[in-house]
Amino acid sequence: MANGDEVSNKQIIFRDYISGFPKETDMILSTTGTISLKVPEGSDSILLKNLYLSCDPYMRARMTISDSYLPEFVPGSPISGFAVSEVLDSGNPNFKKGDYVWGFSGWEQYSLIDNPDPSSLIKIDYTDVSLSYFTGILGMPGLTAYAGFNKLASPKKGESVYVSAASGAVGQLVGQFAKLMGCYVVGSAGSKEKVDLLKNKFGFDDAFNYKEESDLTAALKRYFPKGIDIYFENVGGKMLEAVLQNMAVHGRITVCGMISQYNLEKPEGVHNLTQLVLKRVRMEGLNVSDHYHLYPEFMELMKQYFMDEKLVYVEDMVEGLENAPAALIGLFTGQNIGKQVVKVSHE
Amino acid sequence: MANGDEVSNKQIIFRDYISGFPKETDMILSTTGTISLKVPEGSDSILLKNLYLSCDPYMRARMTISDSYLPEFVPGSPISGFAVSEVLDSGNPNFKKGDYVWGFSGWEQYSLIDNPDPSSLIKIDYTDVSLSYFTGILGMPGLTAYAGFNKLASPKKGESVYVSAASGAVGQLVGQFAKLMGCYVVGSAGSKEKVDLLKNKFGFDDAFNYKEESDLTAALKRYFPKGIDIYFENVGGKMLEAVLQNMAVHGRITVCGMISQYNLEKPEGVHNLTQLVLKRVRMEGLNVSDHYHLYPEFMELMKQYFMDEKLVYVEDMVEGLENAPAALIGLFTGQNIGKQVVKVSHE
Repeated sequence: MANGDEVSNKQIIFRDYISGFPKETDMILSTTGTISLKVPEGSDSILLKNLYLSCDPYMRARMTISDSYLPEFVPGSPISGFAVSEVLDSGNPNFKKGDYVWGFSGWEQYSLIDNPDPSSLIKIDYTDVSLSYFTGILGMPGLTAYAGFNKLASPKKGESVYVSAASGAVGQLVGQFAKLMGCYVVGSAGSKEKVDLLKNKFGFDDAFNYKEESDLTAALKRYFPKGIDIYFENVGGKMLEAVLQNMAVHGRITVCGMISQYNLEKPEGVHNLTQLVLKRVRMEGLNVSDHYHLYPEFMELMKQYFMDEKLVYVEDMVEGLENAPAALIGLFTGQNIGKQVVKVSHE
Repeated sequence: MANGDEVSNKQIIFRDYISGFPKETDMILSTTGTISLKVPEGSDSILLKNLYLSCDPYMRARMTISDSYLPEFVPGSPISGFAVSEVLDSGNPNFKKGDYVWGFSGWEQYSLIDNPDPSSLIKIDYTDVSLSYFTGILGMPGLTAYAGFNKLASPKKGESVYVSAASGAVGQLVGQFAKLMGCYVVGSAGSKEKVDLLKNKFGFDDAFNYKEESDLTAALKRYFPKGIDIYFENVGGKMLEAVLQNMAVHGRITVCGMISQYNLEKPEGVHNLTQLVLKRVRMEGLNVSDHYHLYPEFMELMKQYFMDEKLVYVEDMVEGLENAPAALIGLFTGQNIGKQVVKVSHE
């Protein structure tokens, strides 16, 4: 019940730990909560109005108890994740009413954040684009693409680059970074519509629907007769096995994620890791949290690219907090076309 | 038949391509060949007397047709591999009679090498140790350990290092390099005798017999409660899977070889590569041929270490070319204690 100072605060509650594919019913819409829009007197908290929620594949890991680097969701509490939010009230010297920020928040209309960390809850000072972009191309997925491709993969002009899950939030940007660097880029995705996007909107040199390929190793051989110099790995399992077979000598693999594996009871085995030796391949796992120090240089670059109209961006926006569970689930069946965002409130 | 200028030249002939475990009968001792001990008039060849032959795990790959970086052995021709040899005659300005060299030669008493390449057939100018050391600690395996540990793995003082197949030619040196750098080092091997060597001769902090561990993941957790910073990979398969589960954040894996996999019809699958992302692990394949430019700096270091008596070395020497096939096969069942060498002739 709301008293005079409180307002209703709809939330998406995490039900309990799961195995296998997540379902919408693993998350519950709660309409009974209330929240004060003022931070407690004397606290260093901030009160956020959440505008856009980000749906990201890594969130699956938080639904299962594991030794992941991220804490698990708490059963009975709201889902948490990346969001773009407006500061409605602040007891913290680093934030003031009216600021827009991106970073971790809750899947709810309003979130009270205790002791907010300005290095991970980042003030938005660029407003030439939709604020929703800070859940994607200008936020965590954008920095992931930049750190994972431009830094970890050590790309050089003229190299051959393969991106899986290429129309997703990270993949679409990796492909564009690779083209801007003068690489040859091929992407794969799971539908004709996504493949068309890759070729006709994001400017990939070529693209294919992995679901139509009975032999992934042969498919990659067709697109990369001289081998793959850089693979941006979003998928894992059989796809990784096919890629390893097609790597060029001294190739690099940035392992950003393995979405095909997250919902399996037992992940697929990769049988040809001796290719790492034969081709002297470097394979490196990426977590964007190691690369936040790159965010200022990333933003400078991105502003210039936007000014020069060198980047395109596709997001898949659903309206309403109540539709967030379905949007998140959809990532794992490839429902989304581009970056999956949930609009909670108008700016 | 030998004419006046020719001598008998015993050879080990490669019979034919194989699958599965190699057998002694895949190699045939031929006693009928002859060779002239003079190079052909006007040629740039050299004539080598082979003194020591090196038995190395990578040689298994050359017994099967594949897309390996190395050419396959030629059925009906002698096995080839690393050796230490004496130059008996030379038509080449880079070599002269009486030189000792290490590099590729044939499994035979004498080899005629056309157009020898001084960057891969290397003159030996250090004679304070047995010439046989240039098949091991001062030759290809030594440089492999140096490039793979000191360079690729970016070790730092105080880090935790795990070496599999640790009493072998490369492993025993990696462990000693790690100790010299101030790391904590644990090795595994396949017998009590080898484990004793690791602990009591090579100075590993600890060691275990992997054959006595029913749960490798639990075993590694015992030795590395805080995780493995560097894994020097010689084994592959289930061992790699257990290591991945125990890697520390930002750990590095140098993939030197995967000896457990070479003789399998279908290599084992590794199911937990998502650990690469969770722990941000860098995994890199190593081929010593990429690192020959490091050989001079490596030799300077090694001479100093030998002078300061900071290194020990164990080789497993068999006498006689006719025993070379059994020695090579023995690598794959772990018969050898230390670096496996075949002595063909007296120096």
